[in-house]
Amino acid sequence: MDGVSAIGTAVHRQRDRVKALFEDLARCGRTDPGFTRASYSPEESAAHAVVARCADALGLAIHRDAAANTLMTLPGRDRSLPPLLIGSHLDTVAQGGNFDGAAGVVAGLTAVAALRAMGLSPARDITVMAIRAEESVWFQVSYVGSRAALGTLPDGALDGARIDSGLSLAAHIAREGGDPDALRRGPLALDAAAIHAFLEVHIEQAPSLEEAGIPVGLCTGIPGNIRYPDVQIVGRHDHVGTPRRFRCDAAMAGAEIALTLDRVWAEREAAGCPMAITFGRFHTDAAVHGLTTVPGAFRFSLDMRAYAPEVLAELEAAFLAAVKGVSERRGVTVALGARAEAGVGTVCPRIRDGLAAAAEALGTPTRSLGSPASHDAAAFARAGVPMAMLFVRNAHGSHNPREAMAIDDLLETVAILTVWLVQETCGG
Amino acid sequence: MDGVSAIGTAVHRQRDRVKALFEDLARCGRTDPGFTRASYSPEESAAHAVVARCADALGLAIHRDAAANTLMTLPGRDRSLPPLLIGSHLDTVAQGGNFDGAAGVVAGLTAVAALRAMGLSPARDITVMAIRAEESVWFQVSYVGSRAALGTLPDGALDGARIDSGLSLAAHIAREGGDPDALRRGPLALDAAAIHAFLEVHIEQAPSLEEAGIPVGLCTGIPGNIRYPDVQIVGRHDHVGTPRRFRCDAAMAGAEIALTLDRVWAEREAAGCPMAITFGRFHTDAAVHGLTTVPGAFRFSLDMRAYAPEVLAELEAAFLAAVKGVSERRGVTVALGARAEAGVGTVCPRIRDGLAAAAEALGTPTRSLGSPASHDAAAFARAGVPMAMLFVRNAHGSHNPREAMAIDDLLETVAILTVWLVQETCGG
Repeated sequence: MDGVSAIGTAVHRQRDRVKALFEDLARCGRTDPGFTRASYSPEESAAHAVVARCADALGLAIHRDAAANTLMTLPGRDRSLPPLLIGSHLDTVAQGGNFDGAAGVVAGLTAVAALRAMGLSPARDITVMAIRAEESVWFQVSYVGSRAALGTLPDGALDGARIDSGLSLAAHIAREGGDPDALRRGPLALDAAAIHAFLEVHIEQAPSLEEAGIPVGLCTGIPGNIRYPDVQIVGRHDHVGTPRRFRCDAAMAGAEIALTLDRVWAEREAAGCPMAITFGRFHTDAAVHGLTTVPGAFRFSLDMRAYAPEVLAELEAAFLAAVKGVSERRGVTVALGARAEAGVGTVCPRIRDGLAAAAEALGTPTRSLGSPASHDAAAFARAGVPMAMLFVRNAHGSHNPREAMAIDDLLETVAILTVWLVQETCGG
Repeated sequence: MDGVSAIGTAVHRQRDRVKALFEDLARCGRTDPGFTRASYSPEESAAHAVVARCADALGLAIHRDAAANTLMTLPGRDRSLPPLLIGSHLDTVAQGGNFDGAAGVVAGLTAVAALRAMGLSPARDITVMAIRAEESVWFQVSYVGSRAALGTLPDGALDGARIDSGLSLAAHIAREGGDPDALRRGPLALDAAAIHAFLEVHIEQAPSLEEAGIPVGLCTGIPGNIRYPDVQIVGRHDHVGTPRRFRCDAAMAGAEIALTLDRVWAEREAAGCPMAITFGRFHTDAAVHGLTTVPGAFRFSLDMRAYAPEVLAELEAAFLAAVKGVSERRGVTVALGARAEAGVGTVCPRIRDGLAAAAEALGTPTRSLGSPASHDAAAFARAGVPMAMLFVRNAHGSHNPREAMAIDDLLETVAILTVWLVQETCGG
């Protein structure tokens, strides 16, 4: 058996550990249906405890940073070298699945377990990082845990409220054992300039690998996004019989803005430009809406994402033009509310090529694909850390209880990661 | 002074009585803002007492039927002839205005007062009917008071709950002095075949008369409606990064169905066919929607109204075709849920022409216009009673505290009604 095959075998021998980890994680925040591990919730903390127990059993050094991220380190031969990070998050959306996020933390632990099983010692520290609060639905801010560690949280983010509890991010961090005051005063937990690389494994969030019959995807880039989390349209509530020319129907205005952007998406995508546009919240006002009332109020959230800053700018211009045109035509006013953005996350070509070579050596089929979701890896890339990602085949999308990742596909992915880790850090 | 001018003068001399009536009514169910006289509430009953006191002062015979409607009769010379009814309702929506409904009862009393002041005696009974429970928001049933009297309430309506109290219609009727058991066992309070005609005066619920500078509208018809109170679209909740070709976005499906119908409306209306299409509830699922989730569920209510059954049928066909096309294109399923309809209320051409001639004789400018709201008059028309309506100019729509009707405009309207009454019943 050559070296590469031996690594593959060592990884696949971790199957029972992987299975047990997912079973333990499935006890954290189980709801009906699916799993709800809100950002900085006791359920998320329970998931951190699960992976920390596994790390402890593997003999890793465990550290909790001020943002309550869990860092689990296999010490390198030279501890002064910049560490190599492998990580992902453990929180979920409401009624989400067990794999979105968690698979990446399990992947890191599995790779480290395989290295240890083979008696290999890395040149530099390898740290598996279980990250907090990646799901931006809870605090309306992207990558909270990784950006808190990197010191790149937007101003005021610590004072923002969680959408369900109304409590501030700072209060939630403190409740789950973090130290918001330390985050405010610094120094940072992670110095981006002193990180060798950040790697993230994640389930694919669309079924394109499933469709192609390929187990692993090599990430070509993470889209940037522009977000308007709470746009409010104000028209006029009117009697259901009100003639057309007197109406200021806020819901029809919302529908027209949404469909205008949907057409832009369809046209640009047909022309070969990948992007995504999502109106996740899209609703009349439950306090006053009814069968016989023309809606005078409508709210929506908007997420626009693309792989190039100029495409994002083009989408935002199309959105603002639609808002203006629809406002004039339908006699409504539109309050855009807060705006947030996240930059495009560029993959390090050297690492991506290394992962591709590892896959080829293992004989594992892969396909290159854009993310298209946002990931903590993008926060590291934006901070200047060399970054790469691997995707695992998943039939039913993510953010839902039907996420379907086969353990064997995860192990194939971890094998690629581990072959690369050995070449990157265990040589010489 | 010719006969017509004398009638106009007699009506305008009722100005103080009209003013006092509205002041007394304004003490019934005053809320901040506006007025709340719920269907079968003590506040609605207080308004019935106000008009009954006025009728008593005019020497009318007062009768309360089993549905607690108040019937106030000026006896005719031949009491065996079918009576002529003039009526409207006294309930309001929550925080509504003082004129929607009440203006029609005041109009009837004012016409009768003018006839008496002129010493005219009608050939047949003229009954002013103060009707209960016209606002369908309270019991989700149209025209409760008039249909209870006519025996055309839908099955089970007496057991339906009022939306705020949770008490049944039967219980509310009993509390306000009616007799629900009598309604269940019959005979009916009103035999439609033995009613000469039903006339209703109502404030206009849009500002089209205000816009045109015309005080009075001649109703050309009351629209029928087809309603789908709770349509549910099921797509698939997905991650915000999910590529276009994998999405089953329920909200975009809803938006496309709504805008398809909105285009039909715009085109048909531009071609001269009045109608109205309202998606009053139009919303993602508050339990799961969020910034980063493609909506997998969407619900809406739909009210389509038009003045001809064939136009209603055409709208429903367009809706069902849109549902089918959008379902196929966007990979969603649509559960239509319950369907309800109300027939078109046809205006009697003979009476409408008589009212137009009366207006012309008085020199009062009028304009023909479709309702477009629902009114008790439609229940009478559907039961086979010859029906007509007059609208009074009103600047600020109805179902709100800013309803703005000038007493002088109401008097102009009553003058037209009274000239017609004299010709119809006081001749020979």
